[in-house]
Amino acid sequence: MTRSITILGATGSIGASTLDLIRQNREAWDVKALTANCSAKELAALAIEFGAEMAVVGDAACLADLREALSGTSISAEGGAQALCEAASLGADMTVAAIVGCAGLAPVMAAVEQGKCIALANKEALVSAGDILMDAVARHGATLLPTDSEHNAIFQCLDGGELADIRWITLTASGGPFREWSHEQLASAKREQALKHPNWDMGAKITIDSATMMNKGLEFIEAWHLFPVGLDRLRIVVHPQSVIHSMVEYRDGSTLAQLGPSDMRVPIASCLAWPGRMDTSCKALDLPTIGQLTFFEPDEDRFPATKLAREAAHAGGAAPAVLNAANEVAVAAFLDGQITFTQISSLVARTLETRLPPAPTSLAEVLAVDAEARKLAEELREHA
Amino acid sequence: MTRSITILGATGSIGASTLDLIRQNREAWDVKALTANCSAKELAALAIEFGAEMAVVGDAACLADLREALSGTSISAEGGAQALCEAASLGADMTVAAIVGCAGLAPVMAAVEQGKCIALANKEALVSAGDILMDAVARHGATLLPTDSEHNAIFQCLDGGELADIRWITLTASGGPFREWSHEQLASAKREQALKHPNWDMGAKITIDSATMMNKGLEFIEAWHLFPVGLDRLRIVVHPQSVIHSMVEYRDGSTLAQLGPSDMRVPIASCLAWPGRMDTSCKALDLPTIGQLTFFEPDEDRFPATKLAREAAHAGGAAPAVLNAANEVAVAAFLDGQITFTQISSLVARTLETRLPPAPTSLAEVLAVDAEARKLAEELREHA
Repeated sequence: MTRSITILGATGSIGASTLDLIRQNREAWDVKALTANCSAKELAALAIEFGAEMAVVGDAACLADLREALSGTSISAEGGAQALCEAASLGADMTVAAIVGCAGLAPVMAAVEQGKCIALANKEALVSAGDILMDAVARHGATLLPTDSEHNAIFQCLDGGELADIRWITLTASGGPFREWSHEQLASAKREQALKHPNWDMGAKITIDSATMMNKGLEFIEAWHLFPVGLDRLRIVVHPQSVIHSMVEYRDGSTLAQLGPSDMRVPIASCLAWPGRMDTSCKALDLPTIGQLTFFEPDEDRFPATKLAREAAHAGGAAPAVLNAANEVAVAAFLDGQITFTQISSLVARTLETRLPPAPTSLAEVLAVDAEARKLAEELREHA
Repeated sequence: MTRSITILGATGSIGASTLDLIRQNREAWDVKALTANCSAKELAALAIEFGAEMAVVGDAACLADLREALSGTSISAEGGAQALCEAASLGADMTVAAIVGCAGLAPVMAAVEQGKCIALANKEALVSAGDILMDAVARHGATLLPTDSEHNAIFQCLDGGELADIRWITLTASGGPFREWSHEQLASAKREQALKHPNWDMGAKITIDSATMMNKGLEFIEAWHLFPVGLDRLRIVVHPQSVIHSMVEYRDGSTLAQLGPSDMRVPIASCLAWPGRMDTSCKALDLPTIGQLTFFEPDEDRFPATKLAREAAHAGGAAPAVLNAANEVAVAAFLDGQITFTQISSLVARTLETRLPPAPTSLAEVLAVDAEARKLAEELREHA
């Protein structure tokens, strides 16, 4: 049976992995729309290869290039934020939501309103607008399939299970490149050192988030929305090998865990084929060769980011959006050499302590909270 | 909703764990029949405590004691092999089949013929009569819930999944107390050394099977019947901590694993509550305290039992029943000081090589194969 699919963020790494899987099984998929921010030529080539109905660049300034690259084809080319929402509203059976940042919020919501399946890779939708998004999912009867490896692992371990039967959800964390570093070493950690992730090859922002463990903090907030068992049933365990992607413990004492390679094609394939399975070329798990898996309690003294995230979730309302916005400012400042590694978390903490806006009740209000928090974080950084 | 339950083998360790779980939630269960081999007083006390309709001793010689212990109650007391089958035929919603050895075959089959749920703890039913049993399960529409921790783990990891989607099923093995012993050390291993299992507190026969790894060989044959993915998709990995009880790898590269304490109440609770969950008092998994999980390839040179079992499965027909019977004789001979530890596996191998009867097509034929193989193994032992 052919299913239709739209990929929001087709030229990023999630988009590329998704298209790689579709390429292996072309007859199963009818590609409706592909979007990118500005990579017009690359997007046009993909739209032609996959016979998309529509190609959209989020940055309207890149539309001319896209139109030129698609001239002579029947593929409709559009540009701008509203066009991204139109692409998301085409009613594809499956929408892969992989636009990074707050630019992804409105398109995700537009896809949710279609009441179909959404494979969600955009963090902000859940971190900053979790209540609003989950309300919309319930109201429109949409199916949210998490593509993050941790949340996808939990989703797989929960398959057929009831939230009420859960004793614990455990998110695993690699601990990042600085797992064994002292306070003193962390204070003088260099950009290049923070950019070396032990297990995953990712972008700069998320790699720094991994080093501070804010990545796990943001995932904690996401998990709290996706699997509402309550904050006191969610925990983080440091597992440097990143082989176990997360776990669910049931009230009878059984724990189900999902294991796999550090390859995003695995969770994406699980979403694409859900509730079935599809082949990937990912190699089989070889535990005897891996040899050992180790586990540690997180040290929130050296890595306060997960504590900040848990406190933001407890506070609710605007706090998670402020946390996320302040963290983006802080990471950018660290990458620019303006603040030290340990100042990332302290800048986030100070932003949260300084001013907490009222709880947003719409996407527009989420964006306003985000903008205000960024401004505040910048000010706090400049006057530090 | 109250469900009815019969426990075949109520006074053994599986029976005790099952009754412990029922005791926690008495109103959910209506106990139909409890059976034992000969522990008449103990059985009578349980039958009275749980308000059973019927109590049965497999050994008819113990019936008088049972009748005396139940005099003045309305509980019907019966004895003998046929009475065990009658107890199994009462049509309970759930029958826990925990009679050890070939004595359990006919009662298991009687329960299967009711077309209800069977929580299966009897190894011989699958090892020696696997084809016959699985045919009957399919014909009568019965539901077989495996209670062995490994098979229950696979069952949980498979929940909702398709066999066709499986790339690998991995049975984990502790490796037993002799995991790191050399050939020379194994040749002179003492009874008391073999009886010290690192993780589980079990009977003598199964503890020796764990030391030779024949326990894993028998479980391999059971898994092959329960989850017919083919012998080339079943493998064994040595995992000394016994925290991961088994794993299923899907064709997309996702592996699901079940983890838990070394406590049979966990898999039994999973069977009793299936497809839901029930509380147990088993403590939560604490991986940071456990610290590390390690994994090794099995060494079939030092521990040939799993190889013998795999070859018996490949040969099919009577071979698994002969393997099991010869192993029982060999383990008893080792416990009696008649053969050395390494002679256990070689006696099993020689029995299989010497004479393989035709494939049994009925339970009576399975019992005949079993008796013949025991006789042959005894002869080979005496003339070694």
